[in-house]
Amino acid sequence: MKIGILAIGTELTGGTTQDTNSSFISHELNARGWSVSTIIIVADDESAIRKGLDYLMAISDAVIVTGGLGPTADDITTASIAKTFGLNLCTDEAVLNQMKERFEKYRIKWIPNNIKQAMFPDGAVTIPNPIGTARGFFLRKNGKIVTVIPGVPSEAKKMLFEGVIPVLKRESREARQYIAKRTIKLFGLMEAKIDQILSDVDLKIPGVSIGFYPHFPENHIVITSKNLVESMAEENLQMAEKRIEEKLGKYIFGYDNDTLEGLVASLLKNRALTLSVAESCTGGLVTDRLTNIPGSSTFLDRGVVVYSNNSKTELLGVPVQTLNKFGAVSEETAILMAEGVRKLGKTDLGLAITGIAGPAGGTTEKPVGTVFIALTDGESTICRNFLFGWERKRVKKISSQWALEMLRKFLIGSSLND
Amino acid sequence: MKIGILAIGTELTGGTTQDTNSSFISHELNARGWSVSTIIIVADDESAIRKGLDYLMAISDAVIVTGGLGPTADDITTASIAKTFGLNLCTDEAVLNQMKERFEKYRIKWIPNNIKQAMFPDGAVTIPNPIGTARGFFLRKNGKIVTVIPGVPSEAKKMLFEGVIPVLKRESREARQYIAKRTIKLFGLMEAKIDQILSDVDLKIPGVSIGFYPHFPENHIVITSKNLVESMAEENLQMAEKRIEEKLGKYIFGYDNDTLEGLVASLLKNRALTLSVAESCTGGLVTDRLTNIPGSSTFLDRGVVVYSNNSKTELLGVPVQTLNKFGAVSEETAILMAEGVRKLGKTDLGLAITGIAGPAGGTTEKPVGTVFIALTDGESTICRNFLFGWERKRVKKISSQWALEMLRKFLIGSSLND
Repeated sequence: MKIGILAIGTELTGGTTQDTNSSFISHELNARGWSVSTIIIVADDESAIRKGLDYLMAISDAVIVTGGLGPTADDITTASIAKTFGLNLCTDEAVLNQMKERFEKYRIKWIPNNIKQAMFPDGAVTIPNPIGTARGFFLRKNGKIVTVIPGVPSEAKKMLFEGVIPVLKRESREARQYIAKRTIKLFGLMEAKIDQILSDVDLKIPGVSIGFYPHFPENHIVITSKNLVESMAEENLQMAEKRIEEKLGKYIFGYDNDTLEGLVASLLKNRALTLSVAESCTGGLVTDRLTNIPGSSTFLDRGVVVYSNNSKTELLGVPVQTLNKFGAVSEETAILMAEGVRKLGKTDLGLAITGIAGPAGGTTEKPVGTVFIALTDGESTICRNFLFGWERKRVKKISSQWALEMLRKFLIGSSLND
Repeated sequence: MKIGILAIGTELTGGTTQDTNSSFISHELNARGWSVSTIIIVADDESAIRKGLDYLMAISDAVIVTGGLGPTADDITTASIAKTFGLNLCTDEAVLNQMKERFEKYRIKWIPNNIKQAMFPDGAVTIPNPIGTARGFFLRKNGKIVTVIPGVPSEAKKMLFEGVIPVLKRESREARQYIAKRTIKLFGLMEAKIDQILSDVDLKIPGVSIGFYPHFPENHIVITSKNLVESMAEENLQMAEKRIEEKLGKYIFGYDNDTLEGLVASLLKNRALTLSVAESCTGGLVTDRLTNIPGSSTFLDRGVVVYSNNSKTELLGVPVQTLNKFGAVSEETAILMAEGVRKLGKTDLGLAITGIAGPAGGTTEKPVGTVFIALTDGESTICRNFLFGWERKRVKKISSQWALEMLRKFLIGSSLND
């Protein structure tokens, strides 16, 4: 099946916002054995939308439209599509009532503009939006399928998986190619080094292709395996996966939808261990990431962001002498912070991060990017030190990643210094 | 001048590589007063290239083509363009000799495939590539200009500035337009409501256009003002800005590159005030955002992430009775948390957030999304309560935004309940 993508938004043609949806959608469609031959990006302009849609309808079996479904005056996607196909716009009373209920519940004043988001072309079937108010829809025209979803990337992604792809699967009449897919998530090795190691791995397996995607500070390898026989697609995938794991195993922390914080949370829950965290340079990012996981209150007792020296002494009992002699950014302080926060929270584990995120604060001995991370279980304490060559926000990000990775390695029982 | 962009590459429609060139080019063209109405992305496929080019030639005054100029068999851009326009391909002997010399100099073996990169459509003028072997070119067809450059982003950027834009300037017969631009950043009002208010503002000012961009949880209004006279572009911009500020002033927190945390940090520094933060549902996100600002240690003494009830009592002195009677998520607890953390850190201000981020933990009385935020300066304490209809991470995000916004309003001395 050939699919065309039409991305709508003046911010996209104006260059203020990068259209990331089309690339993401193409990737997912290709992974399912469909092909995208053309992507068109147009402004919120009726004539441009109509021309783009006509063009894609002529060369594709299906069209996916994103963007322009908001309540504001410049959101004209639905109306333009209806006009292109000569359809009337009708109010979906059920959707309208749902919206009004939602607005009432959250005490938001209903204004007439919002009714736009409950109007769809005659004959369209709506696609629910699990995280926003803008519903999508799909319709059939000249035997082709047109699906329409919002442009907000988080909403577009969710609705692609839950709405668009199921519709396309149901409506397409092609012989089915089976696709098996696995994302391998790595941390702790430079991109170029991974690439070099990968080039020595024999991955010439029928129907198997490999993609490589840096997601700072992680690197993801995506294996796609296509075959007419389902079990063969899976078997070939596993062969590729095994070969990659042989070479890169110790840098792999997760697969597919795994997140590092999610894995750490599961491990803590399964082992019924509790945690307290003391953060200096990461400023709360480690607990922010851990509390993104639902149910994190079962293992996270507390966190302290000890930005001042006083707070390190008062809350964690780091002696003034230690701070004076070794500095707030030192192995000695990091260890005492981890041990101090563990006692403070009366938890099984204590984790601490102290460092210099920059841009100022560096010295010859301890340049910007110097970070110490310590972890204690009350019996033993380990500490690792790092020097990161990134700017402030990336130093915070990669430090939080190493802190979580040290915790993960401890929880799975492998050596902390691997 | 209306310009169309055609980006060519199977990696772009296959979703393995994000096309960043088009967005970059659009941005630069818009900044020069030209407009991009349509971007088309196609695979390295002759038919798709020809159709895309025909389409853009019909609706634009000029077309910029990127990608597919390499020496390999799948690079067919030049040949496809020549075919589309019915032109022969001719070898440029000067270019060919230069390439051969270069290969010799760097001792690279010359292979016949390379001759492709010295062949151009009849009548084309080549555009030098300062950092790679693939030259670009431009030609005139039906009074329109077609420029062609490589897809490698670093080469495309350099050749856009040094080759394409000078050609377009020389060939276009338009007088130079000056552009003034301002982004107004709002928070605290729904998108639809802003739109409704904006529709009452007279923004029909010559050369002025308004864009509206949601960036959860913020909304951005971008004013663009074009004029042949520089001072007029700026004057008209200010007129539009003033009219918007009159109606939406109290929801505006910043402009252009301002961030909410950056503004709060500057205000705290300027007023030499110190801050401690107690976070429950936001899990450290508020201090994470504040510590993204270089020099945040001058005002941030400490933060505590008091996830457990015990930690609220032990660190902040919230009585067990209060927690039992009113709950950890209550106005009473939020206020005591703010006052407690201020005392703990011996700072001028104390800020506290407690709420139910979900998905579990809600009750009929206090559903998921219930959040209390309190701020104290030691003399008076204010508390606001909210009910957010978003999923966990967005509840955290918007709660952190409100906490910072309450702080900002306090610091600029305007009413906290505005």
